[in-house]
Amino acid sequence: MGLSTFFDRYLPLIEADLQAVLTPPAGSPPLFYRMLHYHMGWVGPDGEPSKANGGKRIRPVLCLLTCAASGGPLDAARPPAAAIELIHNFSLLHDDIQDRSPLRRNRPTAWSIWGEVQAINAGDSLFTLAHLAIPRLAEGRLDGETQARMLTITDETCLALTCGQHLDISFEDRADVTVDEYLEMIGGKTAALLSAAARLGALAAGADESVQAHYAAFGHCLGMAFQVLDDILDIWGDPALTGKEAAIDIRQRKKSLPVLYGLERSPELRDLYATSAPFDEAQVEQAVSLLDAVGARDYAESLARRYSDETLKHLDAAQPQGDAGQALYALVDRLLHRDR
Amino acid sequence: MGLSTFFDRYLPLIEADLQAVLTPPAGSPPLFYRMLHYHMGWVGPDGEPSKANGGKRIRPVLCLLTCAASGGPLDAARPPAAAIELIHNFSLLHDDIQDRSPLRRNRPTAWSIWGEVQAINAGDSLFTLAHLAIPRLAEGRLDGETQARMLTITDETCLALTCGQHLDISFEDRADVTVDEYLEMIGGKTAALLSAAARLGALAAGADESVQAHYAAFGHCLGMAFQVLDDILDIWGDPALTGKEAAIDIRQRKKSLPVLYGLERSPELRDLYATSAPFDEAQVEQAVSLLDAVGARDYAESLARRYSDETLKHLDAAQPQGDAGQALYALVDRLLHRDR
Repeated sequence: MGLSTFFDRYLPLIEADLQAVLTPPAGSPPLFYRMLHYHMGWVGPDGEPSKANGGKRIRPVLCLLTCAASGGPLDAARPPAAAIELIHNFSLLHDDIQDRSPLRRNRPTAWSIWGEVQAINAGDSLFTLAHLAIPRLAEGRLDGETQARMLTITDETCLALTCGQHLDISFEDRADVTVDEYLEMIGGKTAALLSAAARLGALAAGADESVQAHYAAFGHCLGMAFQVLDDILDIWGDPALTGKEAAIDIRQRKKSLPVLYGLERSPELRDLYATSAPFDEAQVEQAVSLLDAVGARDYAESLARRYSDETLKHLDAAQPQGDAGQALYALVDRLLHRDR
Repeated sequence: MGLSTFFDRYLPLIEADLQAVLTPPAGSPPLFYRMLHYHMGWVGPDGEPSKANGGKRIRPVLCLLTCAASGGPLDAARPPAAAIELIHNFSLLHDDIQDRSPLRRNRPTAWSIWGEVQAINAGDSLFTLAHLAIPRLAEGRLDGETQARMLTITDETCLALTCGQHLDISFEDRADVTVDEYLEMIGGKTAALLSAAARLGALAAGADESVQAHYAAFGHCLGMAFQVLDDILDIWGDPALTGKEAAIDIRQRKKSLPVLYGLERSPELRDLYATSAPFDEAQVEQAVSLLDAVGARDYAESLARRYSDETLKHLDAAQPQGDAGQALYALVDRLLHRDR
């Protein structure tokens, strides 16, 4: 049974759980829940049913897979899987406000439709409902002790997430960001949720602490490798494959890993980034050449490889079982050996 | 032992717990925690120690009192007391952004110092830490089952809080808000946290469900009465006693309870509110006269009295014990029989 069979089997369960958690009780203000349903991709701005892209649900699938690969009953992992996906979506809702993004998954962002004030509050309510996913879906599946443990892991993860977001925001105004700080930032912003997803699945299965720790490290390294790879593809990927304009990070002067590595080593690149006007096409090309010249691509690729190796090492150590175990290797392959 | 003795005894415990939960781990980005410490009143904007007013800590004191009055060990109520106070402070942080308030407790608001983007994230991190207060302070005091129950009550409360906030924001753009909708709004925005504080103290003490329910209803009615009284004092209070300009709610066209009651009944008041220019002094006086003419003050006062009576009825039914029980009656008296 391959990875896509697991996706086919898990996605309907995940959607049903997410919808159950976000079901409006009788008498709720209609717009309060509609903003959340819109953000999740279930309805349009006026509440009309919609089949919008709500994201790939990688995190909850990962959580269910590590549970199954640890020999656990799937039902025990459904509450934390829903919680993690809702936390992810809460963070996107606030991110969109913070970044002033007009679009998310090809649709207008919630704040651009309902205004920033309501959207901040919608994010807060989604954050709350993410927490409630655990008790609300736990009935008959998880005892109180396990729920408390899952909530603590979820909140320690949210703390890493908001700390990563704090760093990311602060980087915009700083010219002296280091590669180490960048790795700390993506550790919170990208890797923490994947780590929690993998760990919570194993916890739901009742796996040993050491197995949980390997799954946590596996998820962390997977997130780190994925993000570094994303940074590489932005600059050196083939736009025909990625479907995105080349070097958007450079055009937007985003402090991605290769850029920070280059800024630490190339005075010419620092001079280029010290200018304030938007880069023209020649300057974008010059920046890429300077990055190539100091070996930024090689550095980033070797780091991605190191994180990939660590990902597999921890997955091996967790001794994933059965078809679900094989699917975890296939998921790593899909996320880390990509050209788009 | 009077109420102020309880405040003197409890406040240092509460501050110690709040500070323990918000202690930065080694290596954290300094500004990440400093924004929170500033908002709590502990430091100035540059991290210098400060003795700013951090608020009255009514909610955690209430939580500790209902625990003691239910015969429980104080230590068991300290984790939820800290959680509730941090939730309250999280909501103020986001409120200040949403209302564009320049000042909070006579100091610049966090967003006005560090910008809105960082302040949204600071609120998110404070929300997270509010949840972590329970497991972090629970060691040896609360089992997992109880922690999970407390977290569920806290999050159901946060959901009511964000729903109340959603209504409050939506009222600004609406001319047809009803008194019933207003009561639903303050039920979420003001009463829910007081209800949770009172209930969680009783839960910490191991009180019966029925006692917990009476404390929850007591806290709810206390919050409702307090808010209605606040609305009355704004318009009819003596500025020399309240220390505030008279009728600020009318000047700002806030849809407070007496105003909504008046708008439902007085076409002249509706005409006045349909104008867009700021009210001059004569118009403020006219609005107050129109409210008096339709009996808005009498209505609001009778409603406040009804909620006060219900508050005491539920407190009686909870059968609060000892000095702490007497202190609860004194707290009701302080909050509901005031002229400022």
